[in-house]
Amino acid sequence: MTISMYKSSVPIFVQFLTSLSGVLDKAAAYAEARKVDPAVLLNTRLAPDMFPLVRQVRAATDHAVNACGRLSGMDMPTFSNSETTIPELKERIAKTIDFIKGLKPAQIDGSEDKEIKITFPSGATREFTGQSLLLNNSLPNFYFHCTTAYDILRHCGIELGKRDFMGSPVSL
Amino acid sequence: MTISMYKSSVPIFVQFLTSLSGVLDKAAAYAEARKVDPAVLLNTRLAPDMFPLVRQVRAATDHAVNACGRLSGMDMPTFSNSETTIPELKERIAKTIDFIKGLKPAQIDGSEDKEIKITFPSGATREFTGQSLLLNNSLPNFYFHCTTAYDILRHCGIELGKRDFMGSPVSL
Repeated sequence: MTISMYKSSVPIFVQFLTSLSGVLDKAAAYAEARKVDPAVLLNTRLAPDMFPLVRQVRAATDHAVNACGRLSGMDMPTFSNSETTIPELKERIAKTIDFIKGLKPAQIDGSEDKEIKITFPSGATREFTGQSLLLNNSLPNFYFHCTTAYDILRHCGIELGKRDFMGSPVSL
Repeated sequence: MTISMYKSSVPIFVQFLTSLSGVLDKAAAYAEARKVDPAVLLNTRLAPDMFPLVRQVRAATDHAVNACGRLSGMDMPTFSNSETTIPELKERIAKTIDFIKGLKPAQIDGSEDKEIKITFPSGATREFTGQSLLLNNSLPNFYFHCTTAYDILRHCGIELGKRDFMGSPVSL
């Protein structure tokens, strides 16, 4: 076993996307038990100019899909970006996991020096190597949005613990 | 350039510890401008049973120090764990960065299969390989606490943006 681009990406994204889906299950159960509209949770933000929960979840899946798609060069799944319910978000996460799990180590490994140029919505471009994209950009952003999704729900009073965030390592 | 345990740990921890220190600078500036006791910020939590900001920062440094110390086998710096001010927390972060920056690639590389057994405060033990410790445990926990520190300050109204969280990649 050696460290590789595959080991540093695919099983990690799958682990934390799976735990994110489980965190949403607990949010759904809370909403049902308290007769709270789940939309209230999905629209909660920690600050007026931060993304609400629904966008935190979308962003987490985007970073995972984009990282794995760019490293592997495979066609990426697309999303409607109109998800407004917990089941829709869970479906988006499941679609992301399916895509990532479908990648073979040979499709990701060796991508550390791959030149990757990203054009942002603003029109600005930034050049990465596969390694700098994954380690300095995709993973930190992915964790940022998974953590903030968790933090929003903790702030709302949903009973969650660190284990719900961490999930379980997957063998891939 | 190939992916390695060193590349996946040292420059990443240094990047995000540096940005965390910068985030605390903005918190200090906010407190001074608004005549708010910085202790108010440091004791803010997103939920009653979550760590306040001061503990989020301590936890981030702990995960970085413990990961690098366990992977390299080097003596780790110790902390008083009594930091209660922003300057004290920044000093703790600086001490952490000094320790991590002092490690050479040869001290970390090749540790992916190293057997690491951790005894938790509860007495429970868990066995890791160097790779599983870093990728499945230390980095996610590190990002969790850095993000939550940022989220607490955003929730308090401090003007911060994603760039403050991301910081800049470091060449090491």
